[in-house]
Amino acid sequence: MRTLYHLWLDSGSRKIRILLKEKGLDFQMKVEKLWERREEFLRLSPSGELPVLIEENGISLPGQNVITEYLEEAFPEPSLLGGSDPLDRAEVRRVAQWFDVKFRQEVTDNLVEEKVMKRFLRLGAPEAAAIRAGHANIHYHLDYIAWLSERRKWLAGDHFSLADVAAASQLSCLDYLGDVPWEKHEAAKDWYARVKSRPSVQPLLADRIPGLLPPAHYADLDF
Amino acid sequence: MRTLYHLWLDSGSRKIRILLKEKGLDFQMKVEKLWERREEFLRLSPSGELPVLIEENGISLPGQNVITEYLEEAFPEPSLLGGSDPLDRAEVRRVAQWFDVKFRQEVTDNLVEEKVMKRFLRLGAPEAAAIRAGHANIHYHLDYIAWLSERRKWLAGDHFSLADVAAASQLSCLDYLGDVPWEKHEAAKDWYARVKSRPSVQPLLADRIPGLLPPAHYADLDF
Repeated sequence: MRTLYHLWLDSGSRKIRILLKEKGLDFQMKVEKLWERREEFLRLSPSGELPVLIEENGISLPGQNVITEYLEEAFPEPSLLGGSDPLDRAEVRRVAQWFDVKFRQEVTDNLVEEKVMKRFLRLGAPEAAAIRAGHANIHYHLDYIAWLSERRKWLAGDHFSLADVAAASQLSCLDYLGDVPWEKHEAAKDWYARVKSRPSVQPLLADRIPGLLPPAHYADLDF
Repeated sequence: MRTLYHLWLDSGSRKIRILLKEKGLDFQMKVEKLWERREEFLRLSPSGELPVLIEENGISLPGQNVITEYLEEAFPEPSLLGGSDPLDRAEVRRVAQWFDVKFRQEVTDNLVEEKVMKRFLRLGAPEAAAIRAGHANIHYHLDYIAWLSERRKWLAGDHFSLADVAAASQLSCLDYLGDVPWEKHEAAKDWYARVKSRPSVQPLLADRIPGLLPPAHYADLDF
């Protein structure tokens, strides 16, 4: 069976979990504790990155971008990149990239990496300045979600797309830590409520990491 | 006419210059001095990143990944992603990503960013430790190029592909600074000599940045 090596609070892993569900593909999940630096894992993912998808024929696909484009090409229906117009698809990729790179660097890395991953990877104590930066930056990104979703039904156009998946993957990690100030961002919250109600996203809401429980509203569809 | 906003030593800009030439597309280039933080540019590229391609209809496409996938979809011939098998294409994207992300972080950021970009962006003096790390890490990546090119004609298979373009874009920036120890890496040098002889790469070899001239071998096809 198709296998996804992942970590619970890795946003790229969450993105591929949602995509596989959207495309109706069966898979099993295996937690890869990166901090154990398993040699067998480095053979699957020479760059050492997560997630890694092992296809049914045994071929390994490392990295969220490689997996995303592969899934779109091998299983085009339903498409998460929008219609057939390359410019529409470029807009989906642009917004997805915003969350994959800019949001991750400015928010997720400052909060999830500092508070959780550093502990596991033994990289020292969390830096207070990074955590403050993450809490400050998230407002500006939630405003961007509001701006987009006031102009479009979903973040990159009329349809739920990779852009929504990318944004939800970042935000669901932060929401697990109780780090999203939803109460100050009504429009972003409305968009996220619609995302949470999708069947492809609900498995994420059932995640429970041993020793690190989410706040009560995490799985609540009416939060 | 199609316009590419770029910077001379930005590896992503170099990648798109090669791709446009490989696809036989005409374009003009405009230098975007990121350190001037032009408001008009931020309207073209909300994330502030280079390169940005303005298509003939005026639509702007920001970021090397968005532009790369757009060019492949809008102008599929010749393809730089290999054939039609999604697994072959995944291998091209995997190797390209290695150079776009891992090589850039471990080598290019430590050398080009520290020695050149920091000066323009007024981010302070170069850090000696970063420069040492860049010089140490490059050997390991040149060994990887040798390993791949001993097993395949080009880095991701039988054909020149996005993987070769990605690697060449990083290395040509470093070569401009005289920072590639070719003399210790014969197999990587042979691969790069083949890359340099491609018509799509030759315009890069004619680059001359005012006040920062490349070493004599930079444009030499028989270096």
